Amino acid sequence: MTEAETLLIQQAAARLGPKGVVTDPAEIEPWVTDWRGRVHGATPAMLAPASTEEVAAIVDLAAEHRVPLVPQGGNTGMAAGATPPADGSALLLSMRRMNRIRSMSAENRLAVAEAGVILATLHDAAHDAGMRFPLTLGARGSCTIGGLTSTNAGGTQVLKFGTMRALVAGVEAVLPDGSIHNGLSGLKKDNRGYSLDQLLIGAEGTLGVITAVALRLVPAIAARAVAWVGVDSPAKALELLRFLEARTANVEGFELVPQDSLHLVLKHIPDTRAPLDGTHAWNVLIEATTSDLEADVTNELEKLLGAALQQRLVVDAVLASNEAQAEAFWKLRDSISEAERAEGQTLAHDISVPVADMPSFLVDAACEVEQAFPGVTATGFGHLGDGNIHFHVRAAAHATPDWYESEGERIVHFVDDLVTQAGGSISAEHGIGQLKRDELARLAPPGRIHALRAIKHALDPLGIMNPGKLVP
Amino acid sequence: MTEAETLLIQQAAARLGPKGVVTDPAEIEPWVTDWRGRVHGATPAMLAPASTEEVAAIVDLAAEHRVPLVPQGGNTGMAAGATPPADGSALLLSMRRMNRIRSMSAENRLAVAEAGVILATLHDAAHDAGMRFPLTLGARGSCTIGGLTSTNAGGTQVLKFGTMRALVAGVEAVLPDGSIHNGLSGLKKDNRGYSLDQLLIGAEGTLGVITAVALRLVPAIAARAVAWVGVDSPAKALELLRFLEARTANVEGFELVPQDSLHLVLKHIPDTRAPLDGTHAWNVLIEATTSDLEADVTNELEKLLGAALQQRLVVDAVLASNEAQAEAFWKLRDSISEAERAEGQTLAHDISVPVADMPSFLVDAACEVEQAFPGVTATGFGHLGDGNIHFHVRAAAHATPDWYESEGERIVHFVDDLVTQAGGSISAEHGIGQLKRDELARLAPPGRIHALRAIKHALDPLGIMNPGKLVP
Repeated sequence: MTEAETLLIQQAAARLGPKGVVTDPAEIEPWVTDWRGRVHGATPAMLAPASTEEVAAIVDLAAEHRVPLVPQGGNTGMAAGATPPADGSALLLSMRRMNRIRSMSAENRLAVAEAGVILATLHDAAHDAGMRFPLTLGARGSCTIGGLTSTNAGGTQVLKFGTMRALVAGVEAVLPDGSIHNGLSGLKKDNRGYSLDQLLIGAEGTLGVITAVALRLVPAIAARAVAWVGVDSPAKALELLRFLEARTANVEGFELVPQDSLHLVLKHIPDTRAPLDGTHAWNVLIEATTSDLEADVTNELEKLLGAALQQRLVVDAVLASNEAQAEAFWKLRDSISEAERAEGQTLAHDISVPVADMPSFLVDAACEVEQAFPGVTATGFGHLGDGNIHFHVRAAAHATPDWYESEGERIVHFVDDLVTQAGGSISAEHGIGQLKRDELARLAPPGRIHALRAIKHALDPLGIMNPGKLVP
Repeated sequence: MTEAETLLIQQAAARLGPKGVVTDPAEIEPWVTDWRGRVHGATPAMLAPASTEEVAAIVDLAAEHRVPLVPQGGNTGMAAGATPPADGSALLLSMRRMNRIRSMSAENRLAVAEAGVILATLHDAAHDAGMRFPLTLGARGSCTIGGLTSTNAGGTQVLKFGTMRALVAGVEAVLPDGSIHNGLSGLKKDNRGYSLDQLLIGAEGTLGVITAVALRLVPAIAARAVAWVGVDSPAKALELLRFLEARTANVEGFELVPQDSLHLVLKHIPDTRAPLDGTHAWNVLIEATTSDLEADVTNELEKLLGAALQQRLVVDAVLASNEAQAEAFWKLRDSISEAERAEGQTLAHDISVPVADMPSFLVDAACEVEQAFPGVTATGFGHLGDGNIHFHVRAAAHATPDWYESEGERIVHFVDDLVTQAGGSISAEHGIGQLKRDELARLAPPGRIHALRAIKHALDPLGIMNPGKLVP
């Protein structure tokens, strides 16, 4: 521990009280390794302020002592963006004690939640108010509003409601100079210069600490229909989506699942069964919802899928006959990553290309990867309607345990090159964090890299906000 | 003309050809005064590049010679953000020759338009493709896509579709270092660091020159219904909006018109008549649309207004019986500013407060202004559902011609103080430009002013992009 860190910890303890400073290594331990267990950091202390003013005080101290802070929410990020450096040169700034829902207004369709509020908690609170916060994802039981905003998170309902950027109505944050940016007024129109809110969304804590967020709500779901559909190809799946979108505004989930992924789920995850009798090269999980109490969304989806069947967009389809079955369908989708881990070593790529190009990209890229790296299996699953696929490359059955280390970088470069050539993004929804910084540096145009560095240096000249993340 | 300007103009002429450089003062004259005729600038030349590469070349030259550029679209801005400084120290960069619609895809619901495309032209092109670009405003026949994006324009359909920020899927721009930022891929998800797109939207050309924009399209309108409604108060008007929104998603225009404004329109604008027999303290223009060919939106709105009448939310209402009448209703709304100009001197404030607070703010603020400045008339009209009112203060009938100069600043300060105390914005949709820079400097928190300046200096260290605008 450096002298500066010691001083900062002492002064933080005086400001935050005993609950606000954790130095016991056993208590810190769960928070210094990233969610995937790939990146191991270290820190002498975890600071846990309970109010915006306390965050501002800590940022002031960090600036005074030149000790960087690593803001952290639920520690569920996929790019190690909230993991401190391994040399212990930064302190963790846990936002989990800032966990109040400050307001919830069905009339204004707005909630204001502090950064440490867990997503599932917000879901419940919105539901109790007769409303809904529509963004959701696998980690909803532990991820936080601050982390979701700082990473511009996506999830499974982006098709209809967009990413966090579309759902954030305002941001409160402590900037690196210790000033408090208050964007929580919930103004629908405000053109007073550059949007700091928009700059902070997706900045991964490198430009300031998000302390609270105003969030848009939508009407509660009155009914949902969930279907499992077999299709011939990703192209047919996208045709099906266009067919549905032209006829209803109710489709909000449209997840592509290849047979290979379904097979692994059925093999490794207990209590799962295939929804359709035959096997299909590709499957789609469709969710349609309505907030209209009088609408029959099941009947609507059934009729539309019937018409799609006649037009040969669909090979076979089944609608969940009750909520338990709907949840069972979703479990198949949500268990793919877990099933892959059980099967062996996997390299995950969270990529996007323009929606219309995704079907052919997916097929071609899988083919090219499997040719270039004999023995591997490449598959893509996920958010076809967003042009965002989780493109996973699995090691061969006979691969040695060091496959990830020995082959990983070459495969990642190969996939990221294909994505870049297709005009796509090497990080669709997971962000850059630590894990994708080198790839961003390798592939982003020089003008963009220059702009990212210039913005970072302008707002955080002392480099105290989440060093080593996002900016190449 | 300075030596540097002379050199830049010569080199620009060599690069752009004769059409690309205008030095005839008579040709330049219409473009150096702002749309309201309040701010008069001067410039030795107007450069008019025809491609992104030509813009980049001009920005390089501007940097080399340290001659600032003032980007300009249709010159319809309300804050003199595209008017060059009066000392002739900057060159106009007219984007009007970059007027191609590069692509229009109904399937992807995306259009890519160059900065100089006129909004009405885009409307027509989208319509021809069976789609619609929903943002519209009074200046649609002359404002450009680049200007609309650079000012994050709003207009009358924000209630349903949001401002430009919600409708822009990507931005192409030349940054101050001459590099080209290409955000046009139309990716629905992309988390590769700070969003330069979002930073450029609303930056008023101070961080770069927007050269093209990817825009979201929505399905074409199949039918619309337009109603004129008399209500007792702004509070009742907002109650009516909530009542409608709870029952239909089809309301996309909801414009508040006080009796005072309607009276001026009927007095000064030819061929106008009051839609309702009696007079009402407040009126609302409601537009409902549908893209569903089978939906009867007129019948729906009629029934809902009938129910609202029974609940005493509405005093009287009439639906336009045909398109001509619908246009006549809209003309009443769109002519308010013109009628006010005909009546006498007016100070316009484009303000917002949280939507729920607007009814009481509007009434209270008008009362306070009229008490503080005896003889003036204060009224607010416009986008009640966005919390955005055009709050206008008219001089007394006996006011001297110098009223604007002698009283203007005091009244503006008074109104902006009220707005700031209410947690609102002194520029809801018109931006800062030159006209509101002093007020932004007076009222924004120091941390925000510091951040705006730091970002500006980081990306435009030479100060060549639209100097003297937006940044306090």
